[in-house]
Amino acid sequence: MSGEFDLIARHWWHTVPSSSGVVLGNGDDCALLAPAPGMALATSTDMLVAGRHFLPDVDPEALGHKALAVNLSDLAAMGARPLAFTLALALPRVDEAWLAALARGMLALADAHGCALVGGDTTAGPLTLSVTVYGEVPPAQAFRRSAARVGDDVWVSGTVGDARLGLAVLLGERPPLARADWQAHVRARLERPTPRIALGLALRGIAHAAIDVSDGLVADLGHVLAASGVAAEIDIDALLVGQAVHPAVRALPLAEALSCVLAGGDDYELVFTSPAARRSEVQAAAAAAQTPVTRIGRIMPGPVATHPLADGRPRVRLCDAQGRPYPVPPGTRLGGFDHFATMSA
Amino acid sequence: MSGEFDLIARHWWHTVPSSSGVVLGNGDDCALLAPAPGMALATSTDMLVAGRHFLPDVDPEALGHKALAVNLSDLAAMGARPLAFTLALALPRVDEAWLAALARGMLALADAHGCALVGGDTTAGPLTLSVTVYGEVPPAQAFRRSAARVGDDVWVSGTVGDARLGLAVLLGERPPLARADWQAHVRARLERPTPRIALGLALRGIAHAAIDVSDGLVADLGHVLAASGVAAEIDIDALLVGQAVHPAVRALPLAEALSCVLAGGDDYELVFTSPAARRSEVQAAAAAAQTPVTRIGRIMPGPVATHPLADGRPRVRLCDAQGRPYPVPPGTRLGGFDHFATMSA
Repeated sequence: MSGEFDLIARHWWHTVPSSSGVVLGNGDDCALLAPAPGMALATSTDMLVAGRHFLPDVDPEALGHKALAVNLSDLAAMGARPLAFTLALALPRVDEAWLAALARGMLALADAHGCALVGGDTTAGPLTLSVTVYGEVPPAQAFRRSAARVGDDVWVSGTVGDARLGLAVLLGERPPLARADWQAHVRARLERPTPRIALGLALRGIAHAAIDVSDGLVADLGHVLAASGVAAEIDIDALLVGQAVHPAVRALPLAEALSCVLAGGDDYELVFTSPAARRSEVQAAAAAAQTPVTRIGRIMPGPVATHPLADGRPRVRLCDAQGRPYPVPPGTRLGGFDHFATMSA
Repeated sequence: MSGEFDLIARHWWHTVPSSSGVVLGNGDDCALLAPAPGMALATSTDMLVAGRHFLPDVDPEALGHKALAVNLSDLAAMGARPLAFTLALALPRVDEAWLAALARGMLALADAHGCALVGGDTTAGPLTLSVTVYGEVPPAQAFRRSAARVGDDVWVSGTVGDARLGLAVLLGERPPLARADWQAHVRARLERPTPRIALGLALRGIAHAAIDVSDGLVADLGHVLAASGVAAEIDIDALLVGQAVHPAVRALPLAEALSCVLAGGDDYELVFTSPAARRSEVQAAAAAAQTPVTRIGRIMPGPVATHPLADGRPRVRLCDAQGRPYPVPPGTRLGGFDHFATMSA
């Protein structure tokens, strides 16, 4: 046991910020957290497996960043402010330099969000990280997947499709991009996603429903639509020519660009809905959060939900700027990402 | 994605008890929890890896029980009441019957403690479970490792050493026990530990420090002693002849019995300290919780802690009923369990 504890103590011990709602941090049987009065505690957990969610030779600092970022992104998608996180880590061997780099990447992002490491577990095993995050949000203002309403606009933050393009290059599915700055951009978007915490906080009381793009725009929006019992029209013209698509993606052949944008995943941008009457408030919130947002569609009546998770019913209609059905070029992938159907390492 | 969600939905979807402090359960980006007024949220996370913490051919129902039990045990060791848990699960393949059994074992224990499954993650990968539990406790009454005081008694609940004996048989280190009831007992203690939630709740306001026995009595007590900057005398006579050691363990050769009792681990009993003046209250609390407890020693002055985790300084002195040093027979193991030193699968 002492070996395990030494390991944790050396790399992961971390001073707990005093202002964060953390009553008791790392080192006891449990951490104790106290959300501010009127706040609920928001929590989410994700597991990242080597060869599945990242390549075994990934830069450990980038891995540390991403493992926490994807969880913070879930807090952003609820409008929650980060308080703390725990890390459960299985390691095939103890590699001091590797662990130190993992810790650097993770704790730098944690510090930027006032998020304290309050516990965890370290064991021998195939390289696996499981992060749990804790945040606080006024429960009435949390963005629930079931809260999209007919007449809402559909918005997306930042750019979508970049991470999928970065992955395609990394996997050798296509050659590196000709422009070095584009190549660096898509690689960074894949490896060091930005959780949209500031935007989530700014949208409290304005947005209805939100989700982060982890599996793809259509797939993730589909979860919101299913939970809300509605459908959506996505304006491909607004999406492709607006700022929601990076020039590196727009420069791809159309079917490939659409596949990245609609089904790419791993961008950790927010897709959210809010009433059409509140467009200027959304823009002001986005400006305050220094996060670009693009209006890409609208919520329409749709099939009643049979299940709060995606229920397989078609709920997303692609249209052009005039509202006509958009002719998707052959070879475009629209769907999500099936962890089991695509299992390979 | 749909495959993954179908999987989760079919096996893990679970009705959230209304009384549990769960504002929003499974199916959104985050769960929302609301501890009762005056309560802090207690949380802990553990990772279990196949071939490391359990044999790959383990009964999945027992595995489900144990994966949650070891986490609930951390809540018990803080005096916290369970509210909810999340499960992150990596699976090498989708095996419906196996998953259904895992869910049965886990949810039966969860229901017994009013603990709702509020989220999680499922992915392809080497079989790994990471459970995070959430409970509530008045922060001033939480049992902190740093709270043991000179003059406190040391107590242990239930029996210790059983699980290690069960493991020895399972690993073929020794033949099955001659008595079938003893064999069944040690196997059950290994595979279906009882989190001492009721005892933890009953000891609120009475006990000072507590920890659960996951790595071994001496090792885990050592964490309390190091965090508190104290030492302890353990009365081996009180331990061995009292009800804290099961007859199956007591029947072993002395060095082996002592190894199981002092270093065995995996029993998930509580070791706790409380003032000598409150012995009758401890006994009454244990009776109310229907959990046997045994007084096995006392807290003594000891080296100041250099680190809140175990710091390697000798802090446990073994003595007999008259307080004389106890002559430990050759071959007795006292220490904990080093995950890396003993790594094998």
